[in-house]
Amino acid sequence: MTRREALQSLGAALAVPYLGQSGVQPNAESLSDIHKHVEGHYSDHLKALRTYIQRKSISSENVGVRECAEMLVEDFGKLGCREAHLVETDGFPVAWGLYDVGAPRTLVVYSLYDVVHVVEKEWSSPPFEARVVPMKGLGKAVVGRGAVNSKGPFRALLNAMESVIAIRKQLPLNVAFVIEGEEELGSPHLPQFFAKQGNSLKGAHGCLTPGAGQNLQGNVVVSLGNRGLVYLELEASGSRMKRGPKKFDLSSYQQTIVESPVWRLVEALSTMTEKSGTRPRIEELNRAVAPLSNEDQDLVAALLTSFDPDKTWKQMFAVEEFADGLSGKALLERQIFAPSLCIDGIWAGYTGPGVATLMPQKATAKLDYRLVPGQDFAKAVPAIKRHLAENGFADIDVRVLSGYNWSRTSPKAQIVQSLVRTYRKAGFDPLMWPMGAAANPSYLFTEPPLSIPKIGGGLGHGARQHSVDEYLVVEGEGRIAGLVEAEKFYVDFLYDFARS
Amino acid sequence: MTRREALQSLGAALAVPYLGQSGVQPNAESLSDIHKHVEGHYSDHLKALRTYIQRKSISSENVGVRECAEMLVEDFGKLGCREAHLVETDGFPVAWGLYDVGAPRTLVVYSLYDVVHVVEKEWSSPPFEARVVPMKGLGKAVVGRGAVNSKGPFRALLNAMESVIAIRKQLPLNVAFVIEGEEELGSPHLPQFFAKQGNSLKGAHGCLTPGAGQNLQGNVVVSLGNRGLVYLELEASGSRMKRGPKKFDLSSYQQTIVESPVWRLVEALSTMTEKSGTRPRIEELNRAVAPLSNEDQDLVAALLTSFDPDKTWKQMFAVEEFADGLSGKALLERQIFAPSLCIDGIWAGYTGPGVATLMPQKATAKLDYRLVPGQDFAKAVPAIKRHLAENGFADIDVRVLSGYNWSRTSPKAQIVQSLVRTYRKAGFDPLMWPMGAAANPSYLFTEPPLSIPKIGGGLGHGARQHSVDEYLVVEGEGRIAGLVEAEKFYVDFLYDFARS
Repeated sequence: MTRREALQSLGAALAVPYLGQSGVQPNAESLSDIHKHVEGHYSDHLKALRTYIQRKSISSENVGVRECAEMLVEDFGKLGCREAHLVETDGFPVAWGLYDVGAPRTLVVYSLYDVVHVVEKEWSSPPFEARVVPMKGLGKAVVGRGAVNSKGPFRALLNAMESVIAIRKQLPLNVAFVIEGEEELGSPHLPQFFAKQGNSLKGAHGCLTPGAGQNLQGNVVVSLGNRGLVYLELEASGSRMKRGPKKFDLSSYQQTIVESPVWRLVEALSTMTEKSGTRPRIEELNRAVAPLSNEDQDLVAALLTSFDPDKTWKQMFAVEEFADGLSGKALLERQIFAPSLCIDGIWAGYTGPGVATLMPQKATAKLDYRLVPGQDFAKAVPAIKRHLAENGFADIDVRVLSGYNWSRTSPKAQIVQSLVRTYRKAGFDPLMWPMGAAANPSYLFTEPPLSIPKIGGGLGHGARQHSVDEYLVVEGEGRIAGLVEAEKFYVDFLYDFARS
Repeated sequence: MTRREALQSLGAALAVPYLGQSGVQPNAESLSDIHKHVEGHYSDHLKALRTYIQRKSISSENVGVRECAEMLVEDFGKLGCREAHLVETDGFPVAWGLYDVGAPRTLVVYSLYDVVHVVEKEWSSPPFEARVVPMKGLGKAVVGRGAVNSKGPFRALLNAMESVIAIRKQLPLNVAFVIEGEEELGSPHLPQFFAKQGNSLKGAHGCLTPGAGQNLQGNVVVSLGNRGLVYLELEASGSRMKRGPKKFDLSSYQQTIVESPVWRLVEALSTMTEKSGTRPRIEELNRAVAPLSNEDQDLVAALLTSFDPDKTWKQMFAVEEFADGLSGKALLERQIFAPSLCIDGIWAGYTGPGVATLMPQKATAKLDYRLVPGQDFAKAVPAIKRHLAENGFADIDVRVLSGYNWSRTSPKAQIVQSLVRTYRKAGFDPLMWPMGAAANPSYLFTEPPLSIPKIGGGLGHGARQHSVDEYLVVEGEGRIAGLVEAEKFYVDFLYDFARS
């Protein structure tokens, strides 16, 4: 099918106005005065963005997290927020800001101020210096932890708002900032924020998570949801094994007659996936996976008309070939709609240099299962425990560290339509990503009682989140937007959504 | 079979003189003057022993190793050694001492001055304070890393020698000390010592490794050899996987379409053993295992008449039940004669507190395979690599960190007979352990060109080597010897071997 056919098919299926069937017109208000301000303040804005990255805030290691939240709250105050304070939880606080000018429409901005850890020696430039370096075929990029996930795009939005206020005195809508510091930990305490402050969000018209929405080819995608997450620790311990070392490590020469907790964990794990993790084998969860709807199939077909998953991902992920030799449609469907089970970490015994002979008394692994529609967070952990028990591994301790359900937003929601119109105004035909692969707690917004449509987006390109040399392009080449274009995009989006 | 029958059967099979069929008589020389000196110097000798433990020397972490070797060399000089110096290798040096009084017989003392690492917070008293604490049913014990493996017994022998010299001016034989600092690393550079200094050992009549030879019931065993060792690192890496992450960690949401090195390692390991590690499945190595000889079967039967492996090991290892529900003869035979494959350590990805979502780019495990007669070190690594390749895991990197062959000494050797006679003089009927489970590089002594019979032994009890709360009894209860009895034993042994 051609791109046009795919879009028509998609449009017909979903009746989405941004495909041309609607009477809503793109907003014609001239924003060139604000755009000029953005252009004239590139170096200030870049500096502000780099400052955010330089403010190290590794939640898993409790490094600088609260200090970073305080910086945000200070910035909300400077912006003119009526409320700007930390909302405490049992973990790291949420940076809360309420910009309220009594406008008819209210936008929620959800993002995160925490980042994941780094293995600094593997980076080509120090991850918290946020150096600007040339990147072949892309332009210039800032390299640093948090560059794309998610300090860079969030700061670009703040920069845009500052330019709006500098020229027009105030924003055209109310904004509620919900910026959390535990997203990289699986948002364990975010529900506490909603219990305390959720009423302030009631009636908000949409929620945006700013992001660098362009892929390597410059195309933009709009993600209509995300997978859920179950984050677990699995532990084998001699204390729970009939024939294992009950109390302490043994010398490895007892391996002939004493069962090893490390081998035990290896055996248990080996029942849980096939093909090096690319096919989870928790059958009860596999059976729950909902089949792709016709709409989803149309969305996939539309995506494929301008997005080449093989080429893009091989480059982005440094991979030569994908699981099961997948490519094209099958590859895209697997990545979007398949549940996954990843070992994020594993450890036992002696892990230093050289030789030490011992049988460890316990062995532990961290795993995350990504939930897809049809699957239910509440049923996932019992299913995993049943899988272990049925395979003879009832002694494996299963600890739930974090988790939440998947979330989807209707493509008909006004915030989706505003975002898509703004993309088209900027010259990009956005493709709808039926569901992003990344897990996040969007269900807290999209599910009752709030039921706020939520979407992520923005212009710009970055990659390698959670990996080495994470980057965000700030001076783009070709179709890749730089920081100036990203900020102008947010200006346009704010006015479109305010007027829609 | 009764104990007497078993011993007769064993004696008949091996024609060993210590069972009474020989004309060699126990040495009748009175050593009571030396014994009195030992008794009168208990607190000095205990202090010397504790000092050795306090001198932390963790070879795997390069903590205090050389300093410990220098202390030993200084002590060799004080003892009256004609040669006392470090013999350098590419790793940690060997502490070498040659006590040469032109005596007709020469004893080699082989031991180690390095210890394995500790997890200090798990110990009931600090592992390098060497506190003396009461232990229920045993008496008083010194608790510390190296207490039984092997600084305690070695220092007891030195104490005994000092008492001999204090009373008799000199030892009744020549002694060559070969004390290495890399035993816990698998003795990777010990062959270099033999290349440099091996000629000095030519013609030596026997080699003793001092040890605490009593088990929890007070019985003593004499070990006639040991298993070999193959110490490996196995690593799965995306760089060697067709469908893995070639260059860097990915976010765990790529687990749907990219194969994970951690799962890959888990899959490869899961082919290598059964029953939580208690049955290695490297079939080529399994097939090479020599069947038990009649002599070995007799030795096992004799052992069982006074050694209860079930009861002893359950207590020593904190285990409720053994692999395959083994007990008695089958348990003992498994522990002595079966090869083993232990995972000493495993690590990949994020191992800190809380949540981090990533697919690690590589995963590593340390393993040791213990070789038994019939198996050959030179063939073991190729067999393991073939096993991996045949099971589809040729991409797993196999790195050999250390290794050596198994070793056995004839029960007819004079040093074995001297040791056994000395045990009987002290009131203990030693049982022959056909082969100890622990791996060590004895083959360097027992194989050509040196062909020096080698044996380990001594009075006393200690346990938990390589584990938490390692201990050596210094004031024994019931049949358990304390330090005084251990030293008197060595005095008697030295004279017996000198005169034999």
